Amino acid sequence: MKAPEDRGRNPRDELPIDETQRLIASDKVEGTEVYSPEGEQLGAIRNFMVDKVTGKVAYAVMSFGGLLGIGDRYHALPWRTLTYDTRLGGYVVSMSREKLERAPSYKAAETPWSEPGYGRGLHDYYGVPWGS
Amino acid sequence: MKAPEDRGRNPRDELPIDETQRLIASDKVEGTEVYSPEGEQLGAIRNFMVDKVTGKVAYAVMSFGGLLGIGDRYHALPWRTLTYDTRLGGYVVSMSREKLERAPSYKAAETPWSEPGYGRGLHDYYGVPWGS
Repeated sequence: MKAPEDRGRNPRDELPIDETQRLIASDKVEGTEVYSPEGEQLGAIRNFMVDKVTGKVAYAVMSFGGLLGIGDRYHALPWRTLTYDTRLGGYVVSMSREKLERAPSYKAAETPWSEPGYGRGLHDYYGVPWGS
Repeated sequence: MKAPEDRGRNPRDELPIDETQRLIASDKVEGTEVYSPEGEQLGAIRNFMVDKVTGKVAYAVMSFGGLLGIGDRYHALPWRTLTYDTRLGGYVVSMSREKLERAPSYKAAETPWSEPGYGRGLHDYYGVPWGS
C-alpha cells in the first residue's frame, strides 16, 4: 500500500502508458482510489492477487478504512468487478455500498486464501462466474 | 520496489497461498529475487505491467542493479519468460546472462512504454509470440 503522502497525488499524473494505453504498472494499481458508481470515494486498492498459472489478475484487495464503518478490514473483489475511470483517476466498483458492507472481509493478520473455497465464495457473492 | 531490509527476507515465508497455491499477492511479486537457470541471483523484480484489457500480467520489470554491470537500468521481460521456483524462493529467467545484458533496458526516469512498438520489440528479442 502507498504511503499516505503518496496516496494524495492524482493517479492520472502517475499512470504509465504504452502505445495503446493498455498497460498499467503494478505499484500504480496499489494505492489507487476506489469509487462507487455515484463517484463517492470508498477506499483504495491495497494490493491484488495474480493467478500464477494463467498469469491473470484474479482479485483486487480493497482497503475501505473507516469509510464503510469497518476499519482495518480488507475486501477481496473479483478483478472484473472494477473498471478504471480516467475522469476520476481511479477504479469504479460496480455495486452498492450496502453490498460491499455485507461482503466477505478479513483483518490484516488473517490469511483467508488458505481456506478451501474462499475464492469460489467470493465469486458467488459478487455474481461473477468461477473461472472467468 | 521493496525497501532493502524487506528484500533480505525469504520470500518463501511471505507468499500467501490459496487452496490451490495458485495466487500470489502483487506486492510480494515486487522485490522477489530473480535467478539464472544455474541458480545465480541476478537481481529482483521492481514491478510488473498489467494489461488493462485482458487483465493479464504482460511484463515483469527487472532491476539488475550492478550485477550485470549495468547499474540502475531496468529490463522489461515478457511475463512468461519467468518461472517461480519454490526451492529458490524466487523467479528463474529462462535465458543466459549474456542475452539479458544485451536486452532492451531503460533508466528509472525513462518511459519506454510510450514508444510505439516497444512491447513488440521486447517480444521479438525474447522470442515470445506477440499477443501471447
